[in-house]
Amino acid sequence: MTGPPRAVAAVRAAVRPALRGSPQPVLAACSGGADSVALAAALAFEARSAGVRVGGVTVDHGLQPGSAERAGRTAALLRELGLDPVLVVPAHVGEEGGPEGAARTARYAALARAAGEHGARVALGHTMDDQAETVLLGLGRGSGPRSVAGMVPQREDRGVCWWRPLLAVRRATTREACAAQGLPVWDDPWNADPAYTRARLRAEVLPLLEDVLGGGVAEALARTAALLREDLDALDELAGGHLARLAGAGGLPAPEVAALPTALRRRVLRGWLRSAGVPDLQAAHLVAVDALLVRWRGQGRVDLPGGAGVVRTSGRLVLLPAALRPGPHDAPTDPEETRA
Amino acid sequence: MTGPPRAVAAVRAAVRPALRGSPQPVLAACSGGADSVALAAALAFEARSAGVRVGGVTVDHGLQPGSAERAGRTAALLRELGLDPVLVVPAHVGEEGGPEGAARTARYAALARAAGEHGARVALGHTMDDQAETVLLGLGRGSGPRSVAGMVPQREDRGVCWWRPLLAVRRATTREACAAQGLPVWDDPWNADPAYTRARLRAEVLPLLEDVLGGGVAEALARTAALLREDLDALDELAGGHLARLAGAGGLPAPEVAALPTALRRRVLRGWLRSAGVPDLQAAHLVAVDALLVRWRGQGRVDLPGGAGVVRTSGRLVLLPAALRPGPHDAPTDPEETRA
Repeated sequence: MTGPPRAVAAVRAAVRPALRGSPQPVLAACSGGADSVALAAALAFEARSAGVRVGGVTVDHGLQPGSAERAGRTAALLRELGLDPVLVVPAHVGEEGGPEGAARTARYAALARAAGEHGARVALGHTMDDQAETVLLGLGRGSGPRSVAGMVPQREDRGVCWWRPLLAVRRATTREACAAQGLPVWDDPWNADPAYTRARLRAEVLPLLEDVLGGGVAEALARTAALLREDLDALDELAGGHLARLAGAGGLPAPEVAALPTALRRRVLRGWLRSAGVPDLQAAHLVAVDALLVRWRGQGRVDLPGGAGVVRTSGRLVLLPAALRPGPHDAPTDPEETRA
Repeated sequence: MTGPPRAVAAVRAAVRPALRGSPQPVLAACSGGADSVALAAALAFEARSAGVRVGGVTVDHGLQPGSAERAGRTAALLRELGLDPVLVVPAHVGEEGGPEGAARTARYAALARAAGEHGARVALGHTMDDQAETVLLGLGRGSGPRSVAGMVPQREDRGVCWWRPLLAVRRATTREACAAQGLPVWDDPWNADPAYTRARLRAEVLPLLEDVLGGGVAEALARTAALLREDLDALDELAGGHLARLAGAGGLPAPEVAALPTALRRRVLRGWLRSAGVPDLQAAHLVAVDALLVRWRGQGRVDLPGGAGVVRTSGRLVLLPAALRPGPHDAPTDPEETRA
């Protein structure tokens, strides 16, 4: 007896563990590209033995001529694979975040609506190669370790569970799996358009990096991202515990927070300010608030976006809402504030 | 009154804060390249007002014809800059780690000897561009978050304090500073030899990444590396605290260690095994020992490099030295070991 071709077996094995015992039905998000077609086929196959209902959803971005026909053909393929229900959902693409970012935002909103209506979690076809691109993008943006930690295999967001079972599968494997099953795939022309950053990372940077570093780069990036996620999750969890313990109606006790390591202090302050509804916090704001703790020399109020501010008074950090902003000539009333 | 040219001022400003109040004399390590010549010149200038003695050291690798003359010319330049003492130290380059790695190992050993003899800390000319290359190299190796965290501004190792004051200065600035001061610089031909990984990252990968990501990549990598160092330092510190609290002559209490977040558990186990002298620990060993904590189903001894092993017995992880290795047919003696 021969089993399925190697690539088909690999994709099926990747979806199997988390599909078994799934408490929810699954919607396979499918663009018609090789990654998501291979995912949908594997889920359709494994759904039977797992006893989990698996449907499919494809998004019509409405941005290119023929996109409705394209979405219709993808839906037909998903039905042929045995997925049920199969949905075609429209995306309402705005302007914000550039063409790539706006399409992505609209696509996730459309998927979240479909998942919410069907009480389903969404399976996404991101591969190890997508993960490597995401890590490099995050690194290039410099917005901190979390952006280098890449995509997570499973995560709740906007009330929806997003599941990425193929993060350990190479893109070449999904192409091979589609070919082996005779499944038609559609290469999104955007994926090869070098005007898009991600497309250039894929077509130019990663192959060069593979050549220079002697191969194994996608695996290395994915491995580092996974370890990094563990590290950052631990810090977030520890900081959450400290915040729950320390924060009260009277603010944060300065000496206790100051005694924490920098990485925890930064997270406790961010969590405190965010939970109080302060919008658009930047690194510079956190540095200024942190200085009230660790470089305290009687400095005054730190202004935050949205009009709120933080002062240190009687050994505590206190958040003043926008309405309580003092005039520029108000003298400090607390002796600690004027300490040199 | 006009000050020094912008680039010269920038390099001087970078060395100034940590030079003032330096408890030790400083040895500027100088290859004769622009980065370390700019560093040596800035240190020579700032030494006067800081009241710190600054010498210079250059390493003769003995690998290329004329390397002794090269080292002699660099030493003469360091003397002209007013550094005192100026040392030329030989490196004993072995074979291990490839040509680049072996030369680096020998260079650091030679610098450490010189620093030890003079009770000095060593100033190194690594720039923000070197940091970006280091981060990319670490990422490509996949050896974990610490390798992506790059070089630290100051660190003790082998009894020597290594100081890198130029990590926030661009390589273009050090070149400009040398030109503005009429200082001769020597471009190490190795730096441009595309056979070397780092040289190719510098010449090919980083410029392409700059182009694709729209600039600012070196700054972004340096910023991420700095935040990451804070995060990893916090985790190492916290894990060190847990290890000190939990480890005893009778091993590690399994339930307490199992209750820690994964990232801390991994560090506690690594610290415990390393402090017991277990060599060459790999990720797979830690995963197997961790399974004794979090996937405990009565499994037996985990073998470690060097012949030692870990067993779980009476609710504790116990390290058995190589000599106590049981024979393959020894029955487990502890009821916990045979629990299904």
